Amino acid sequence: MGTDARMTRQRFLRISSRATAAFQGELGAFSQRAAINIFGPRVDPLPCVAFDGVFEKVMKGEAAVGVIPIENSLAGSIYQNFDLLAQHSLEAIAETYVRIEHHLIADPSSNFGRIRKIYSHPVALAQCRRFLKRLKRIEEISFYDTAGSVKYIREQGLKDAAAIASADAARIYRMKILRRGIEDNRENYTRFLALARKGAFRPGGAKTTVVFGLRNEPGALFKALSVFALRNIDLTKIESRPIHGKPWEYLFYLDLHSDVGSRECRNALRHLQEMTLYFKILGSYKTY
Amino acid sequence: MGTDARMTRQRFLRISSRATAAFQGELGAFSQRAAINIFGPRVDPLPCVAFDGVFEKVMKGEAAVGVIPIENSLAGSIYQNFDLLAQHSLEAIAETYVRIEHHLIADPSSNFGRIRKIYSHPVALAQCRRFLKRLKRIEEISFYDTAGSVKYIREQGLKDAAAIASADAARIYRMKILRRGIEDNRENYTRFLALARKGAFRPGGAKTTVVFGLRNEPGALFKALSVFALRNIDLTKIESRPIHGKPWEYLFYLDLHSDVGSRECRNALRHLQEMTLYFKILGSYKTY
Repeated sequence: MGTDARMTRQRFLRISSRATAAFQGELGAFSQRAAINIFGPRVDPLPCVAFDGVFEKVMKGEAAVGVIPIENSLAGSIYQNFDLLAQHSLEAIAETYVRIEHHLIADPSSNFGRIRKIYSHPVALAQCRRFLKRLKRIEEISFYDTAGSVKYIREQGLKDAAAIASADAARIYRMKILRRGIEDNRENYTRFLALARKGAFRPGGAKTTVVFGLRNEPGALFKALSVFALRNIDLTKIESRPIHGKPWEYLFYLDLHSDVGSRECRNALRHLQEMTLYFKILGSYKTY
Repeated sequence: MGTDARMTRQRFLRISSRATAAFQGELGAFSQRAAINIFGPRVDPLPCVAFDGVFEKVMKGEAAVGVIPIENSLAGSIYQNFDLLAQHSLEAIAETYVRIEHHLIADPSSNFGRIRKIYSHPVALAQCRRFLKRLKRIEEISFYDTAGSVKYIREQGLKDAAAIASADAARIYRMKILRRGIEDNRENYTRFLALARKGAFRPGGAKTTVVFGLRNEPGALFKALSVFALRNIDLTKIESRPIHGKPWEYLFYLDLHSDVGSRECRNALRHLQEMTLYFKILGSYKTY
């Protein structure tokens, strides 16, 4: 744990009596690893079945923070979480990156030759396509979660099944790694955001995320981006999502390399609001 | 069928001995309806299991055209098809919009009170959430295709099951519509592109789609969009997708309200290529 993580954890423990981080998936999920990156190893994990459950736990105060994946370097944005960010009034307070390394995991008493079924999340299965293609007579089974598939094989006592998941999941459920690093592409990273209720943390950090809607008129997006280009503020990401009930109109999500506390960022966002129909700062935060 | 559709169909029949349109899903899929919008009712349907199969059928000449959904007004872009467009050298030759109306469909000898299971594509199930929430003791089953779920219930002779799919699917499989228009939001449209091999059609039309990659430097996207803003060319859509092997670098997809044959569009695209690392015109086409 670096100094930054320790400081965040201290701030975090100070503001909350229960140092609990909600995330989607079972214990050993990559999201839990992200929570540890940010808040340190003593953070209390609160597994949730679905992403909207993570938002709800934080909204209700059952968890001090929630940790959600927002983008994978291969699969792209996790669009559902962009929509949930716009729908809820939570604040992004930190980001971190986790290298996604997939392992083939089975019961300690099993071995590679006995495996006939492989369970995992469909995105993980897709990211191990080359490895899976080489196997014969194997059935792939889509599961709601990578770590959850390890837990399932353990609980069911399956000896002819393996799961694709993290090393953390293998350790937590005391299972054996049969094959390491079976992902097709090693440039496989997921970016996570930590979320908290508004005002729980003092905002600030090198990155700021905003969401806005524009009038549907020529040049609207170009003009919106000009407020950052004119002030040499770098964009690291743009995403668009449909607005329900207004076909072919979009909300735009921008990540800026700028602290919301800086004069240039404040000026750019004020300028932006001259042309937006809807505008919200989703957070200004540090990278862990 | 409007005059435009008839003219396209004539051009289409002239260039191909087999007037075949490949699409993902079973007979009665919304994609087949899109193919009929564009090419007329006599187009020969070629159902495919997956989207990449549609691209392959057209690449190999087994189908003269392929029809793919590209964006839904509620669910957003169909990202897999953006990736497939960049990977294949096919050309978009037409677009059309289909209103997505979901019906609850069952065996003619069944009735609403007997239904215990509902099959459909997960996106269709999600779009009928309010209707499904009101039902008690119903099991939802995710299926690979809406029309395919009607076909499955028919073939298996299930009387306690219903499917969510189009009116076309009910008609084709001679099934009964139990409840009409069960979608949560009526502003539910899907935009489809028709694809052909390069050179099979003369390009041209009110819309042009391009894909490009930029240097990872401040203001790059702003400068790229300036080539259109400076010439009053309207953007109707921007999409970004990750580049595999280059974490946090993106390919951008733009839809322009401009004919690639016009001088202003040619100038803008030449200007754009001064700053792109990768550039491809995916098509210039009419709307049906």
